[in-house]
Formats: sequence, structure tokens, C-alpha cells
Amino acid sequence: MSGAPDFDRIKAAEARLDGHVRRTPILSAPALDALAGRRVLVKAECLQHTGSFKARGGWAAVSALPAAVRARGVIACSSGNHAQGVARAAAAHGTRALIVMPGDAPAPKVENTRALGAEVVFYDRAREDRDGLTATLAERDGLTLIKPYDDTEVIAGQATTGLEIAAQAAAEGVHAAEVLVCCGGGGLSAGIALALAETAPRMRVRPVEPDGFDDMARSLAAGTRLANSARDGSICDAILTPMPGEITFPVLASRAGPGLVVTEGEVLRTMKLAFQHLKLVLEPGGAVALAAALFRPDALSGDAVIAVATGGNVSAEVFARALSMPPTRA
Amino acid sequence: MSGAPDFDRIKAAEARLDGHVRRTPILSAPALDALAGRRVLVKAECLQHTGSFKARGGWAAVSALPAAVRARGVIACSSGNHAQGVARAAAAHGTRALIVMPGDAPAPKVENTRALGAEVVFYDRAREDRDGLTATLAERDGLTLIKPYDDTEVIAGQATTGLEIAAQAAAEGVHAAEVLVCCGGGGLSAGIALALAETAPRMRVRPVEPDGFDDMARSLAAGTRLANSARDGSICDAILTPMPGEITFPVLASRAGPGLVVTEGEVLRTMKLAFQHLKLVLEPGGAVALAAALFRPDALSGDAVIAVATGGNVSAEVFARALSMPPTRA
Repeated sequence: MSGAPDFDRIKAAEARLDGHVRRTPILSAPALDALAGRRVLVKAECLQHTGSFKARGGWAAVSALPAAVRARGVIACSSGNHAQGVARAAAAHGTRALIVMPGDAPAPKVENTRALGAEVVFYDRAREDRDGLTATLAERDGLTLIKPYDDTEVIAGQATTGLEIAAQAAAEGVHAAEVLVCCGGGGLSAGIALALAETAPRMRVRPVEPDGFDDMARSLAAGTRLANSARDGSICDAILTPMPGEITFPVLASRAGPGLVVTEGEVLRTMKLAFQHLKLVLEPGGAVALAAALFRPDALSGDAVIAVATGGNVSAEVFARALSMPPTRA
Repeated sequence: MSGAPDFDRIKAAEARLDGHVRRTPILSAPALDALAGRRVLVKAECLQHTGSFKARGGWAAVSALPAAVRARGVIACSSGNHAQGVARAAAAHGTRALIVMPGDAPAPKVENTRALGAEVVFYDRAREDRDGLTATLAERDGLTLIKPYDDTEVIAGQATTGLEIAAQAAAEGVHAAEVLVCCGGGGLSAGIALALAETAPRMRVRPVEPDGFDDMARSLAAGTRLANSARDGSICDAILTPMPGEITFPVLASRAGPGLVVTEGEVLRTMKLAFQHLKLVLEPGGAVALAAALFRPDALSGDAVIAVATGGNVSAEVFARALSMPPTRA
């Protein structure tokens, strides 16, 4: 399977995930509504197992494998969050996970990946061919590669976030809204877009990226996949991908609204605001969607906006930087 | 009404709170289980509206008042969390809230109380007679005093936390456990104890306090209410009360296990661990129960322990102190 998942496949992933991933809460705070000038609903995927939504896609992919294939083990490339999602799913299914990780991945992500029972192999983000190394290791050990976003089952797993958003927002009286999603390769954005198309057609995904890594925004504007010039140099480590996915891009090109871009300063301020008003720990890459809700109000429409807070795996040092930001007031 | 609430009153509070307070999630993390040597379930009341469980008691008390009485307004004394709970409930019911607050209350709590529409009057914790001042203001304006813990309806409201714990823990397969509760005057501890007695009789409350403010632990051991010698000097501002409540103490004396006491260093380390592994922001007073789960394993029994994380209203400065604590490993 290498195309976008249809709705049956998303519902099948939902059934396999039941009891194994958390239905994370939708939170809000009057102070954030005041800042944004509209109601802000935050889907708190930082409270997901492993600290990010990647636990969904990892579980969906590993649980979908034929038993004999799964028994040989899985391999994944990841700066950390996909790694933890795959590692957790592999451990729970009693199989091996080998994770190929950049040498500059944040220490907590490396530690947590190992704590989940995975083996970690490092590569140099600037100089080594990650995909070649991964292919060699997969071939050697008979491992199945779980791609972070260009994988049908991974997208189906991330899409379950969208099923929950539709139901939870409706319970809050919100049936139409823009849904801001932190975007790397676009797996979560595409999954949510596919889920909402069936369950909440008056909601529309808007991918959000950090300054300098706005490949999805530029690609959506151009109508074709464009790459980032840089590979690192942003605090948003979780969502630094070279270019939109082959599967995810067409999904978003036909279903998502224009991409949004936020600055590093806005991301850090948003982390502090989430600390103050939601009591949530967000990592930089997990805060970009909420940052757009708070700092790009004129680029949004409607009385309510939904922001997916995708992850919370951040070092104490980076979080302390966010805490030292000046106050942000409405 | 000035006694402990019976179960009917707790269920009535639950009905009034429905749709107005959050059913907060129960969270867990493998790293915390490893540290504690048993399963640790964390009831995340820091994610409650206003950032603490006090939104429950405030709503229960204000919503229980006869309309004509409520229309004149309410008054409360609080270092901040009870203030916000009462302020939110009063605003939602369209009535006035006057809050008497110590001059050294953390700035975010003061700001948030005002943002919720309440008027704040300060007093000097060391020199002024808070209760006399409060009585004078109440008399002058015809306001109803909402006490922070020695109030039947407030206890009934906090007890709804216990109803949720019983149901959520059962869903996780946990039917017997010690339930660690951050304890000031004992309103939440007593409420949870009353709720569990009816819904999960194999669960037992253990109140937890910070070093130097262990009046409940000493009182339970002595069988009579004993006061703290100090009135301030702990980072756990939310739970610094002079002595156990008149209503709450007998409830806990007959239903709770021995109190537990933790150090400031353990509290700060626990805040960092909750940041790392749960992605939750805990304030010091909201972290003492989880600190006991992690650092007092020998004082606990059973395969699982439940810790109530009662609040997350902490300044960036204090949280940065927690982040600077050395790593804690199993």
C-alpha cells in the first residue's frame, strides 16, 4: 500500500488503536481566546503516549503488518518522535525496533527511544546518506521500514486525531473551523484532512511551519512539491523535513487551505503561553500551530480555531528559554 | 449546611458541575512507573479550568446558593487557586466575587483572578487578621463567604474528582490503590475519601504535605487537630493552611491512611519529572502527591498508586528552578 488511506482504512486504524493510544483532551483558556480574538481549541497531543501524536501512526503501521513480517522487526528514521512511536508499538507487539537518528537529536528523545526498548543508530544529518544507511540495515536484518509520513497506515493512524477533533469540537459546539496542524512531511496534516473530509466537512486543515522550513506552504502555493534549502538551524527539530511527502502533498493540495509560517520568537512565546494558561509542555515543533492561532489572527477566518499541539518532547534548556520570554498580552 | 456532604449531595454537585468543569485525564508514563517501583496513575487536575481542582468546589458552592443570595455576590480568602475557582463560578453565574488575598500571592494567580472578573483585596499574611477583614467586607456588602475547605458544598464539589478517579482507574484495570492527595486544609482529600468510600472501597486516601506544613499528618497520627508553627516559608503556597479543617479532619481521621511528607527538593524534582514524562505543568503544591508516589515508595502498598496533580499555577521563575534540578533516574 502506498497511496492515501481511504476512510475505511482510517476507521480500521481507529479500531486497532482503541485502548492503545489516548483520546487526548481538547483544552482552552480565556486568555488565549483573548489573544487570538476568537475561540481557540487546543488538541493536546503532547499528552499522547510517548509525548506526541506519533504514537498513533507507529501503532497503526506496526499493527497492520502481517505477523510473520512483523516478527522480523521494523526500522525507522526519525529525529525522535516517530522513533518513540514506532519503538513503543514494536515493544508492545513483542518485536524489534531499530531507529536511525540524526546525531543532533535532542537527548530526551534518544533516551526515551532507548527506554522503549529500541536500538538506536546515529548518522550525521549534514554528511551521511540516511536513506542509504537505512536501506542497508533493513536489507541486512529483514526489517520493515516504517516511513514517518509517506506511508498509508501511518497516515491512517495520524488521521484518528482528526476523528477525535471532529467529535470533540462538536461536543464544544464547534462544527466549522480552520484546523491548524504543525507540519513536517505532512502525515498528520494529511491524515486529519482526510478524516475531516468525512466527519466534519466544514473544517479545513491549515498546515503550519517554522520560518525557513516552509516547504509545505510554498509547495501548496506553487501547486508542486518544493524543497527547503536548509536542513537544520531551527529549534523546531520535530518538523524539519526536506520537502512535502509524495502521498501527503496531493492530499493537502486538494483539501487544505494555505500554509502558515511562524517565527522562532513566536514559537517560544507560545510555549510560555501554553505553560501559563494550559499547563501543557509543548516542544517547539509542537507549538507552531498554536503560535499561528495566536499570532496570525488576520490570516484566519471564523469564530473558532482549532490548533493541534502535536508534541511535548523538549529539553529543560530549550523550555527554560521559552520561560524567559517577555509577557505576551492581549 | 456545615457538615460533611453525604453521597447524595456529592452526586447532586456532580450533576451541577456537568458541562462546567473538565473531566481531566488520568495519565501515566513508563519512566515514572520505573521510579516508583509500581504503576503510577496521575489524575491531571492541573488541566482543570483555572488550572486547579478548585474550579470544582467553587462551582459547587456558587451554584448551590439560592438565587437571591447569590445575586448579592460572594467573598473568599485564598492564596490563589480557590480564588480563581470562586471567581470563575461567580462570573459564569453573573454575580460579584470579592477575593481577600495575601500580599505575597504569586503574581499569575492574582492576574488570573482579576482576569476572571473578581475584585481583589490584599492583606498582610503575617500581621493582619484575614478572617476579621473578610467578615467586615462580607457584612458591609451582603456577600456570602465561600470557605476554601470547611464548606459542605465545596467538599462535595472536590469529591467529584474522586468519582472520576474511581471510574477512570477501573477503566485502567485498577480497583484497589492508595490515592495520594496534595493536602492543605483537607477539602479535596476529604471529598475524594467520601466519594471513594461509595464507589471504590478498596481505594484509600493518603494526604500528602510539604515539610514543615505537615499539620494533617501530625493530626491524623495524634487523633486531634494540630496546627503548623509556620505560616509561610514553603514554595508550596497553594497548600499552606494553619491546621486541618473542622469538617475535613473527622472525615479523614476515619477514612484516610497516614499522611505523607515530602521535601522541597523532592517537589522540585517531581515538577521536572512531570515536565519530562507527562508534559504537565505542576505547581509546587500540586506536585507533593506525585512526589510521595515517586520518593516514598516504601511508605506505600500495592501494585499501583494514584496521585492527584492538583494544580499548575506556577510562575516561570519557580518552574525554571524545577527545570534546573539534576536528573532523577530509577
